[in-house]
Amino acid sequence: MEGRQTSTVDPTLRRVSLARALSAVLAHPIRTAATQRVPIGADSAGRVLAEDVRALEDVPPFTRSSVDGFAVRAQDVRGADGRAVVRLTVIGEVLMGAAAPPAELQSGQAMRVPTGGWLPRGTTGVVKKEDCRDLGAAIEVVDGEGSEDHITAQGADVRCGDLLRRRGDVLTPASVGLLSGSGVAELVVFATPVVGLLVTGDEIVSPGHDLRAGAVRDINSLSLAAALRAMGFAPRTYDRVPDRKDAFERAFARARAECDAVVISGGSSVGERDYTPQIVGAAGPPGVIVHGVLAKPGRPTMLALVGDMPVIGLPGNPVSALVMLETLGKPVLLRLYDKRDETLPLRARLRARLDLDPELEHLVPVALARAEGGLEADPLLGTSAQMHILGFADALVDVPAGSGPIEAGTWIDASPLSRTSSLR
Amino acid sequence: MEGRQTSTVDPTLRRVSLARALSAVLAHPIRTAATQRVPIGADSAGRVLAEDVRALEDVPPFTRSSVDGFAVRAQDVRGADGRAVVRLTVIGEVLMGAAAPPAELQSGQAMRVPTGGWLPRGTTGVVKKEDCRDLGAAIEVVDGEGSEDHITAQGADVRCGDLLRRRGDVLTPASVGLLSGSGVAELVVFATPVVGLLVTGDEIVSPGHDLRAGAVRDINSLSLAAALRAMGFAPRTYDRVPDRKDAFERAFARARAECDAVVISGGSSVGERDYTPQIVGAAGPPGVIVHGVLAKPGRPTMLALVGDMPVIGLPGNPVSALVMLETLGKPVLLRLYDKRDETLPLRARLRARLDLDPELEHLVPVALARAEGGLEADPLLGTSAQMHILGFADALVDVPAGSGPIEAGTWIDASPLSRTSSLR
Repeated sequence: MEGRQTSTVDPTLRRVSLARALSAVLAHPIRTAATQRVPIGADSAGRVLAEDVRALEDVPPFTRSSVDGFAVRAQDVRGADGRAVVRLTVIGEVLMGAAAPPAELQSGQAMRVPTGGWLPRGTTGVVKKEDCRDLGAAIEVVDGEGSEDHITAQGADVRCGDLLRRRGDVLTPASVGLLSGSGVAELVVFATPVVGLLVTGDEIVSPGHDLRAGAVRDINSLSLAAALRAMGFAPRTYDRVPDRKDAFERAFARARAECDAVVISGGSSVGERDYTPQIVGAAGPPGVIVHGVLAKPGRPTMLALVGDMPVIGLPGNPVSALVMLETLGKPVLLRLYDKRDETLPLRARLRARLDLDPELEHLVPVALARAEGGLEADPLLGTSAQMHILGFADALVDVPAGSGPIEAGTWIDASPLSRTSSLR
Repeated sequence: MEGRQTSTVDPTLRRVSLARALSAVLAHPIRTAATQRVPIGADSAGRVLAEDVRALEDVPPFTRSSVDGFAVRAQDVRGADGRAVVRLTVIGEVLMGAAAPPAELQSGQAMRVPTGGWLPRGTTGVVKKEDCRDLGAAIEVVDGEGSEDHITAQGADVRCGDLLRRRGDVLTPASVGLLSGSGVAELVVFATPVVGLLVTGDEIVSPGHDLRAGAVRDINSLSLAAALRAMGFAPRTYDRVPDRKDAFERAFARARAECDAVVISGGSSVGERDYTPQIVGAAGPPGVIVHGVLAKPGRPTMLALVGDMPVIGLPGNPVSALVMLETLGKPVLLRLYDKRDETLPLRARLRARLDLDPELEHLVPVALARAEGGLEADPLLGTSAQMHILGFADALVDVPAGSGPIEAGTWIDASPLSRTSSLR
């Protein structure tokens, strides 16, 4: 179908660049996932905020000591410098978690205080334990310099009302701690978008079943679902769809009803039985927006919207499918979170020359390794051992159409492949 | 306790560099998690292999076409070059998933074949559909050049018996596909190590409960558990441990019995009630190996082993605790997977000058952003707003003791903080 205009009014883009394909789809409105109110917890990390979050309390909630030592009047200990010593009366001890503020501190007095302890009113300095001689009822301050620096004022870290995080932010472990520390008990987050996965084909056999003659093993149901999960989506894998129009039509209707987006693998190329674009297009406007990109791998990729629901048609080839899911699928699907792709590229030095067909944009899988002065990117250009090779890739390098050869040693940007970073 | 040798025979290292601390602990044997046999699936991504994996089948399992077109004898179509045309008899069609190999192909004959279709014996080339005129019972080949390139031989991607992955490898979405495609139905992986988390303190209040006077909000139970999960461990959080020796002793004994490792937050500093090292040391040799590092933040960190079980004592300060869990905890805990830390550093240009106390090693949180020619690292050096600041950090920059000032514009390596990369 590529390059053949079936009609002059057909609005589908064909043989376009990846950037053009993406901007054409993203110009349309795309739905966002439902939101939900959840209690904050360790499992909040990784969630995407659907509302801004403000601090509900000061952090710290009271003025406290940042060292183990003695609360003092800074003025009193200024003279203690190693030669001269200052003697103060110890009037008590601050206990951690005490429910009332300690007594007020007067000049000439000191109060024993642990790290994090609530400082008595009147405190203007804290002398470290190791800078005093502890005589029990009194101390001799040997070094009183910088005693003001050991006070952390109420609200010094966070003030009640501070805007801490915005809608669209992904919570990290540290930010979960920050919000919890600021009195936030509940969050409004996006529900994890459900992405239906339809893998078409009669010839595909699941793991653990005998591989009958003429059949091939299922790859895409597993690798695409794993990649969707690593990207932050909840994949819903449908039973493999037989290569018949009516079967596909039924499966697609079901997936549309049950999911926030649909990813289809196979059935989008130029084969005769490829009714996929026809059925997707008939499901509702705007329909098939892109069918065919000028990129390798991934030429027969299809991007569509049924209403505001994204439909991503990936090639059947497992390498093309994964690479296109990363390159075109992910930025579209992230809109379900109202997000742009914020993955930071990795700068790396190319280990081998790249001399590619300038007619196409190329997505070159690379393995990354530490080297002297930065990262090195080893291009994994296979002949037929494509899947074998992709299994070793850490990232993709995008070489635009029209590029000349790129010499070994050139610094390039590599986009890391989505992977579940947490081992399990 | 730092810097004070309680006894000349005390083997505990104090005030040591991070590298020294780490190598001292890693010199001891550390247990590995149990292994388990699991069926391969989309949820295998992120798991760590406990055994090498070999291919059980060839990929592809039969010689197949990489295009939609016609199986031919390459010899027959060599003359078709746009001017001359070669006419061949179509003797049939290869169907996807057909259970028997197609009939043998003779000279002068062609057979219709879809992408991925099983090629008849005798095939030495495939002519693309768009390079023929299809007359039904015959074709006229217009362009026969390179017909050999459209054949993917049985086993071209993976050969049965190939070593695909090694013990210790973390499965990515692509490698799950590769293994599934190669006939692997089951994997032997490490069970997710359970890391007990003991947060000590009387003054800590959970989210959703009133913050009484003198108390502070719980941060560490949430942020450390989230970080452990992002690193690939299953955190088991115990009820907050009251600041009493007997309570800690009981909680620690329970955690030791139930977990593969224990992380303790608080109770390891120089405060008077800090019985933690004492109890950990008494639990069995080798005991406390490091107590106190020459680093900021994180000075009072403790590293211990009870038998082959790691015990990581983190400071109570939430920023210090998270930074030390990343820097010292993670490399030790990864031994439960029999792994080294393989996180690739990000090379970035420093946006501001760093002028730090050369007596200490510093771990400087940085925010990373794309910039002209690579990434930029913005050092987040707070005064008291430490937690606020860490919430914005993407990575840590390690500045060794003895370093002079580092000028803005210098390229530095930043270690990404563990975060659950999958949004949820």
